[in-house]
Amino acid sequence: MIEITLPDGSIKEFPKGTNAYQIALSISEGLARNVLAAEVNGQVWDASRPIENNAHVKLLTWNDTHGKSAFWHSSAHLMAEALEALYPGVKLGIGPAIETGFYYDVDFGDYEFSSDELPSIENKMLELARTKSEYIRESVSKADAEAYFTNKGDEYKLDLIKDLEDGTITFYKQGNFTDLCRGPHIPNTGFIKAIKLTNVAGAYWRGDESRKQLTRIYGVSFPKQGELVEYLKMIEEAKKRDHRKLGKELELFAFSEKVGMGLPLWLPKGAILRQKLIDFLQRAQIKAGYEPVVTPHIGHKNLYVTSGHYEKYGADSFQPIKTPQEGEEFLLKPMNCPHHCEIYKVKPRSYKDLPVRFAEFGTVYRYEQSGELHGLTRVRGFTQDDAHLFCRPDQVKEEFKKVIDLVLYVFGALGFDDYTAQISLRDPENKSKYIGSDENWSLAETAIIESAAEKGLKTVVELGEAAFYGPKLDFMVKDALGRKWQLGTIQVDYNLPERFELEYTGSDNMKHRPVMIHRAPFGSLERFIAVLIEHCAGKFPLWLAPEQFIILPVSEKYEEYAKKLLESLNNSDIRGLIDLRDEKVGRKIRDAELKKIPYMIIIGEKEVETDTLSVRKHGDGDLGTMSKHAFSEQLTKEITV
Amino acid sequence: MIEITLPDGSIKEFPKGTNAYQIALSISEGLARNVLAAEVNGQVWDASRPIENNAHVKLLTWNDTHGKSAFWHSSAHLMAEALEALYPGVKLGIGPAIETGFYYDVDFGDYEFSSDELPSIENKMLELARTKSEYIRESVSKADAEAYFTNKGDEYKLDLIKDLEDGTITFYKQGNFTDLCRGPHIPNTGFIKAIKLTNVAGAYWRGDESRKQLTRIYGVSFPKQGELVEYLKMIEEAKKRDHRKLGKELELFAFSEKVGMGLPLWLPKGAILRQKLIDFLQRAQIKAGYEPVVTPHIGHKNLYVTSGHYEKYGADSFQPIKTPQEGEEFLLKPMNCPHHCEIYKVKPRSYKDLPVRFAEFGTVYRYEQSGELHGLTRVRGFTQDDAHLFCRPDQVKEEFKKVIDLVLYVFGALGFDDYTAQISLRDPENKSKYIGSDENWSLAETAIIESAAEKGLKTVVELGEAAFYGPKLDFMVKDALGRKWQLGTIQVDYNLPERFELEYTGSDNMKHRPVMIHRAPFGSLERFIAVLIEHCAGKFPLWLAPEQFIILPVSEKYEEYAKKLLESLNNSDIRGLIDLRDEKVGRKIRDAELKKIPYMIIIGEKEVETDTLSVRKHGDGDLGTMSKHAFSEQLTKEITV
Repeated sequence: MIEITLPDGSIKEFPKGTNAYQIALSISEGLARNVLAAEVNGQVWDASRPIENNAHVKLLTWNDTHGKSAFWHSSAHLMAEALEALYPGVKLGIGPAIETGFYYDVDFGDYEFSSDELPSIENKMLELARTKSEYIRESVSKADAEAYFTNKGDEYKLDLIKDLEDGTITFYKQGNFTDLCRGPHIPNTGFIKAIKLTNVAGAYWRGDESRKQLTRIYGVSFPKQGELVEYLKMIEEAKKRDHRKLGKELELFAFSEKVGMGLPLWLPKGAILRQKLIDFLQRAQIKAGYEPVVTPHIGHKNLYVTSGHYEKYGADSFQPIKTPQEGEEFLLKPMNCPHHCEIYKVKPRSYKDLPVRFAEFGTVYRYEQSGELHGLTRVRGFTQDDAHLFCRPDQVKEEFKKVIDLVLYVFGALGFDDYTAQISLRDPENKSKYIGSDENWSLAETAIIESAAEKGLKTVVELGEAAFYGPKLDFMVKDALGRKWQLGTIQVDYNLPERFELEYTGSDNMKHRPVMIHRAPFGSLERFIAVLIEHCAGKFPLWLAPEQFIILPVSEKYEEYAKKLLESLNNSDIRGLIDLRDEKVGRKIRDAELKKIPYMIIIGEKEVETDTLSVRKHGDGDLGTMSKHAFSEQLTKEITV
Repeated sequence: MIEITLPDGSIKEFPKGTNAYQIALSISEGLARNVLAAEVNGQVWDASRPIENNAHVKLLTWNDTHGKSAFWHSSAHLMAEALEALYPGVKLGIGPAIETGFYYDVDFGDYEFSSDELPSIENKMLELARTKSEYIRESVSKADAEAYFTNKGDEYKLDLIKDLEDGTITFYKQGNFTDLCRGPHIPNTGFIKAIKLTNVAGAYWRGDESRKQLTRIYGVSFPKQGELVEYLKMIEEAKKRDHRKLGKELELFAFSEKVGMGLPLWLPKGAILRQKLIDFLQRAQIKAGYEPVVTPHIGHKNLYVTSGHYEKYGADSFQPIKTPQEGEEFLLKPMNCPHHCEIYKVKPRSYKDLPVRFAEFGTVYRYEQSGELHGLTRVRGFTQDDAHLFCRPDQVKEEFKKVIDLVLYVFGALGFDDYTAQISLRDPENKSKYIGSDENWSLAETAIIESAAEKGLKTVVELGEAAFYGPKLDFMVKDALGRKWQLGTIQVDYNLPERFELEYTGSDNMKHRPVMIHRAPFGSLERFIAVLIEHCAGKFPLWLAPEQFIILPVSEKYEEYAKKLLESLNNSDIRGLIDLRDEKVGRKIRDAELKKIPYMIIIGEKEVETDTLSVRKHGDGDLGTMSKHAFSEQLTKEITV
């Protein structure tokens, strides 16, 4: 008998050689039907693989990332089986699971393949799935593995086997298909109930442009038909919410080839939205004891040599700016930190002065290849909501907690209520590759872990994911479509204080190095606004809406009245406009809805006579009539909530 | 007899050959004593020069710029006379009047001259002044002029005579001194009652580094001893108000050689001041129908080739930024206008949409030689309070008037109540060097002249001073020390709309070119803040003060109380801090006064017990005790006034 420890801490006895499926069955049949794989002592295994020793076991279903991954990986094998059936002699490269779905790289040889053929592959896959073929794991010797694929004539698999060590090689078989594969896989193909092959692209073998280009077929699959329907709806919805599309429709931003790709031009409405976000965060920061600073967008090349950024960004980014005389060289700043270090050094600092917190909405420039540019999420110039906290080592935890508070305040105000945090720590096996003393590292790592726990964050800890200069915490936010985005970041830094020789005088009257904390709740304004647009589908919270109300005069007769009304409503907190076009009011309402303007005020004869407003709310429809004062109060109240 | 028309339009008869002094005498003896020179038909003449024909005559005194200029030019001659007396054989270059005072370039030959000798020169000058030698004008032939200076052995004057045409050459003599000079001069040396030689510098003959370096002696002189005393006081005061000195003392900004000279780092207090100015103007602009935009700090080199800025700034400014791939070239933007033109082009515009007004606090970069950098007034990166108005030709006047309103609002709010405007028009003799149709030019010029008149501006019109692309209006502001600064500017532009092929659809359904108006009330934030610091000697109006109040606890015991008080007072409109140092309250008050913090709140036992504040105001002293609420109200009221 062996002891199996389950995630809730309970321990059960099973015969040696039992598997995860059987463990699940011992709990409930329903659970057993849903088990896709299992985590055994931290490694993901097939549900059918025998467990020979005491172990910690976590059963993985569709709700687990690793469960989904096994499901999609198995779907790739299923697609390969279908391809071999439909295109005999086809050769196969690699076929992994990806973040959403899977792909397989295929050499179609003499077949002329077109994406029109995807539905027939889907059908074949479904047909094979219905046979409920088991995925069978088999250890093979390197010689046998080579013999198998030599016989089959699959040079790609042979190329892969070359790099493997004898004794570690496994095959997976299902139905008529055998693949070189580490696994794990789901129990059988019958789990796969819905399939959509989404896309076809070219991919060089092993990513090497000098080698053959294969055909990469992307797909996604689900254990229920309903989930596929929902997924396709989500994709459709994501297309509608695409920030590039909405950004254009709502006139938020534009790009001009003449100015340069990846360099956003913020149009008036986008500039207002951007400014409101800045004002909002700035107010919160001032309350939290931050001090604003403003620094130039360039600096001497040597500044970045000192900081190490030149080594990191130099060759691959915008090149140095020469001057007509005196041989100086400047760089567009890729980071604000060196400038803030120089501000720290403007005067001597004492332990009593710390922490100091310098905040800047600093625009930085980094070159990206034109093919990698994407709307506002991948640009060549972006504005970080940057701040650098300089503190004593004993203040790191307190500061970290305050930053978490600030980040959560920001997320809350913007309707992001589903987030997790990743804590990236040192690789404890390889401490030498990190800068900073052992003592300070454990101080900081403990501070981060404790802060996150005290603030009740859902966290994942990743060992070895820290930057060489310090541990960090990144926030992953789920948007309204369930997609995850990395937004805010908090990073401890022992490196820059060293490189810039930053100091403070301690209570012992000796010089000490401060610790630096980098943090950006939004990450960058550009990326954040992109995510926000997609999250709220362009229907911004009232306080952010570039146009909060629109006055719709029923006819030209009421223009003057409308203009006076606008003048008396417009103030620093409420902003609106008038639709003066010679259009029917029905059309004006439809257009205002399309522009996602929160409030519509209709002005006709009745309204002018009674000095009232007929108000409609976007999405909610008619709110009835109210006085100007009541309307203004309602908006102000909604904004300050 | 001839007819003399005076500035008030009155006409008087005088004998042919009468002079300005005699005209003045006919009005009053007192006036005659003060006449330094005269404008005769727009040219400045000696007061003693006979007028042979009917003429418009304006008598010039110390209160006229040209009067002062003649005075200082005459003082340069007096200094030359003194130098020849003290250093026989000394050779002289040029000796003009400058904005304040005069200089003479001197070749001391074998004399070893030191600035310690300035007082003895001053004394000699005063001695010679007391002789009341008349300045006598004399026409001489080129041959006679050359003979005179050959005989005297003055190669510099000979070099100057070479370029002059026979028949136009005049000498001026006073006492023992004769100079090659066009004049005009004051009647006699007796007018000069007070002299201060201020500075000695090197100056190459004719500004040419390959030629001999002469000694330039600067001086200033006055018709009354009291004015010199006042002037020296002003200089002393200007040194105290120097924005570089105050900027450091008040911790507003700093420069770092590591970042680069001429690239200001705005420290927290300066960043707040800067932000308050931006907020203030932004609010006013939104009320005035401006729309904010935000554009990148770089653009393709070709963007500036199109705009013509590359031709203007290219070779002498920051050089193009190359990229690692794809051979693109970017420039740091020297101007925001090209970006705003691209925003104009984002969508088609109709005559009904105009004017559109894009405003941006846009940071631009222009290279200046390191020797020319000066605090915040001459920098390599600065933020323009830029806006571009795109309008129809028939809207120019209306828009111009609105911009004047805005500029005057800004000046008023910041305590600049003494200003004039210079209107720069085309040279009517040379219309071909300007771009744009004759019709549009007269439309715009008339619009500017009429707008300025309707707004009651004191203006000077300068023909030929317009930019090649359009006429403009510049504001000259007088600061508290009486010094003039060019701040706001409004410029009409026909060039960029042409170069960027900007269009709107007219009511005739045809395409038309909009007119562009550039305007910046501050000019640049950096320069404006420099002037503001010197104008108010660092004692900013309450709404701008980075720290509006400081809490001074009498002892450590009241720290907690002070902290709570600060928390309840600090909000988005009022900002303050606590002096927690272990110092006597008298010292804390003195230091707060030095930091020019408007309000001081003293907290001791009495205040804690009665829950009141003892308040002092910077400059005004003790205001007595008041409740927290009353204090907060007083500040809020003072801010919103």
